[in-house]
Amino acid sequence: MATPLAAFSLRLRARIRNQPGVLGQLATAVGAAGGSLVGIEIVATDGATVTRDVVVFCGSEGHAADVEKVARGVEGIEILEVEDRTFALHEAGKLSIESKFPLHDRDDLAMAYTPGVARVCMAIAHDRSLVHRYTMKASTVAVVTDGTAVLGLGDIGPEAALPVMEGKAVLFKEFGGVDAVPVCLKVSSPDELIETVQRMEPMFGGINLEDIAAPHCFEVEQRLIDTLSIPVFHDDQHGTAVVVLAALRNACRITGKDLSNLRVVLSGAGAAGVAITKILMTAGAKDIVAADRKGAIHKGREALDPSKQWLADNANPEDRSGSLQDILRGADVFVGVSGPGLLNRSDVESMADAPIVFALANPVPEILPEEAEGVVAVMATGRSDYPNQINNVLCFPGIFRGALDAGATRITENMKLAAAQAIAGAVPEDRLSPDYIVPSVFVPGVGEAVAAAVADAARSDGVTR
Amino acid sequence: MATPLAAFSLRLRARIRNQPGVLGQLATAVGAAGGSLVGIEIVATDGATVTRDVVVFCGSEGHAADVEKVARGVEGIEILEVEDRTFALHEAGKLSIESKFPLHDRDDLAMAYTPGVARVCMAIAHDRSLVHRYTMKASTVAVVTDGTAVLGLGDIGPEAALPVMEGKAVLFKEFGGVDAVPVCLKVSSPDELIETVQRMEPMFGGINLEDIAAPHCFEVEQRLIDTLSIPVFHDDQHGTAVVVLAALRNACRITGKDLSNLRVVLSGAGAAGVAITKILMTAGAKDIVAADRKGAIHKGREALDPSKQWLADNANPEDRSGSLQDILRGADVFVGVSGPGLLNRSDVESMADAPIVFALANPVPEILPEEAEGVVAVMATGRSDYPNQINNVLCFPGIFRGALDAGATRITENMKLAAAQAIAGAVPEDRLSPDYIVPSVFVPGVGEAVAAAVADAARSDGVTR
Repeated sequence: MATPLAAFSLRLRARIRNQPGVLGQLATAVGAAGGSLVGIEIVATDGATVTRDVVVFCGSEGHAADVEKVARGVEGIEILEVEDRTFALHEAGKLSIESKFPLHDRDDLAMAYTPGVARVCMAIAHDRSLVHRYTMKASTVAVVTDGTAVLGLGDIGPEAALPVMEGKAVLFKEFGGVDAVPVCLKVSSPDELIETVQRMEPMFGGINLEDIAAPHCFEVEQRLIDTLSIPVFHDDQHGTAVVVLAALRNACRITGKDLSNLRVVLSGAGAAGVAITKILMTAGAKDIVAADRKGAIHKGREALDPSKQWLADNANPEDRSGSLQDILRGADVFVGVSGPGLLNRSDVESMADAPIVFALANPVPEILPEEAEGVVAVMATGRSDYPNQINNVLCFPGIFRGALDAGATRITENMKLAAAQAIAGAVPEDRLSPDYIVPSVFVPGVGEAVAAAVADAARSDGVTR
Repeated sequence: MATPLAAFSLRLRARIRNQPGVLGQLATAVGAAGGSLVGIEIVATDGATVTRDVVVFCGSEGHAADVEKVARGVEGIEILEVEDRTFALHEAGKLSIESKFPLHDRDDLAMAYTPGVARVCMAIAHDRSLVHRYTMKASTVAVVTDGTAVLGLGDIGPEAALPVMEGKAVLFKEFGGVDAVPVCLKVSSPDELIETVQRMEPMFGGINLEDIAAPHCFEVEQRLIDTLSIPVFHDDQHGTAVVVLAALRNACRITGKDLSNLRVVLSGAGAAGVAITKILMTAGAKDIVAADRKGAIHKGREALDPSKQWLADNANPEDRSGSLQDILRGADVFVGVSGPGLLNRSDVESMADAPIVFALANPVPEILPEEAEGVVAVMATGRSDYPNQINNVLCFPGIFRGALDAGATRITENMKLAAAQAIAGAVPEDRLSPDYIVPSVFVPGVGEAVAAAVADAARSDGVTR
């Protein structure tokens, strides 16, 4: 049975007969059905009954339905309401757009709106660069998608993508103090997507591209970088790459390996795979071989799409060929951004001493930590229920905060490297261990450290306004 | 000298010699220079000096510079800082995008973001109408402009328009509880503007068009109404029209006139003029003659643009011609949405008994209230420093709140009429007077009353989802 999770939690409002043992029977029944009872609150009482809200984590939607049925069957209990807590939290969306100051009277109105606002408008009309100072552009980023590759769910469209983009905006604020606006676009080509974002440039200080299918995402990002004067960053590519580099730096510290001597195998030649390859090479790694479903990507392969061709031409210096299993033999590092269960224990055993395995496929990794236990030196996944979660949220809020603070016009390679360094550095030497190579997202100060490092790098690179 | 206003206010940080009379000298000097000293706060003290923040309202930017100079000249005072309060309030923009709930731990994250959010995404992917329930679309409106007709400032571009759109978003939240996103678009044709808004439909529950130049604004609004399944409302047209109708209803109550018998003269055949004509006719007015710079718009005029042609064909049933002065003779009502100083006192004297004059040009009306005093029965302007301000903010927050609450797919004529009725009804019978025909924007409950009336009208009209 799947682990009970908040994502599948119920709130049951139960009127419970006021008699010893009845609540206990409910708890026992829920537990026996595999639910995890995490909270109980009294809502109302009368002489004969106590009404309580009972929160239960379940393992799936089907399991939640079973738990509800079991609860309804307990003698002495009447279930008044059943709420799916995840859906309840999403009612009417997750964001609120607020004024930064109260509007008390006509004087406040006269400064925030007419006639005072006209003075600010005219100042910007005369010197357009002031839009970066006197408007939301100073601190607001667009989280842009066309809904073509949402999470692992595929091309579900811009409406269905909106809850993810709102969630991203929540994370931008929480971890970077960045105001973020979800922008879910109904477009039918990369050209339309690019053109629409170009038209929206006036109000945004940065563009975070999100969940756009490969290979279009490469073209969309590059053309926007080339034509906009604000930072553009495809988080699925570079956010992941930055955190992988941070994690790999710390894994090297633990294993005593040197980044420049590593033999790295990468499974998955999509957007994230290419970006990981690029950042690792920029950071000094030399021997990286990427593989897709057909095995190693090398110069002899035919009919490669442009990003795979790039990998064939620029990575894999020994021009290795063969299956994923073939090229994994003797490798120091495996990075998977591909699919579930591609590796088994003996594959890991075939790697070099002290193998480093980042199995990042979500929700089911290329190999589960329990399968690789005792063989791997350091293991990371994309999941929050195992140690060493490679989570983009360590990167994107801080990287945009830093870019906005510095008035950066673009995100340079050095800014990404600086972000990775700051994330790696957020794990103090005395806490570094095989189970703790990247900070938890809730460690305070990571976003600020990333922002400061990124802003410095922007200034060093001379890409500030 | 212009009236001192918050819009032109300074905050002077002054280190003042701690000696009786010095602060008084500053106050006297500022007052003699025409500044209005509205607040003094102590910031710091030492033995010899007191440092204070002194807030002074001025009449213009030049006047503020004079006031600053005068303050610097006062013996015993050192000016440490001078802040333009309007610009200070606009630093980094006026909006904050917030999460509706705190993100305490991994369980919150698992519901708001992955893996829980995927369940909400899939629900919407299977039933797209759920986007109205589980996302920001439920309560979020776009405030869309191309920056071609911003306030009275003209075509200043999308960047310079942004402070106004942010201000509008502040008003949407304050007076209607509506989340509003400024959308300032860099487009070069109505087609591009329409297309871009169509592509943004997934994330918005309504479109408020703003400060788009006539005649393009008519086409943009109509084509968006025809192609989108969410409400579209050009506030410059219909917001003004709704509040004018509300004010006129109450002016009729005061003067004992009947809307259907009024002879109305309208100066200004732009976007607002056409919309005012339409709503007054829908409400029962029959005799409306519009005039532009060339005089009355009638069937005999040639080379009229489409909106003026509409006025010639549909209004002016007697086919009156002549100058504005000619047609004003004997009229019951003047509504001006044109330019400063077009009328004088004798023009108003030439009107019918108990004339009603709405001189809405901003910032300088067609005739100032002091000029018309004693002749007019009821007078209104667009200004906050005279009684009876015709202010769109009485309308747009409530109209969108009501439309969103009802799940309306469009804004019907009945919804606009209901909004006008609710605004008129927000002035209680015992407070109705020539100086109080529309509620102040700060009267609590106006937005709610408008929203309730609009939602009811949407349901009656059967335009809800």
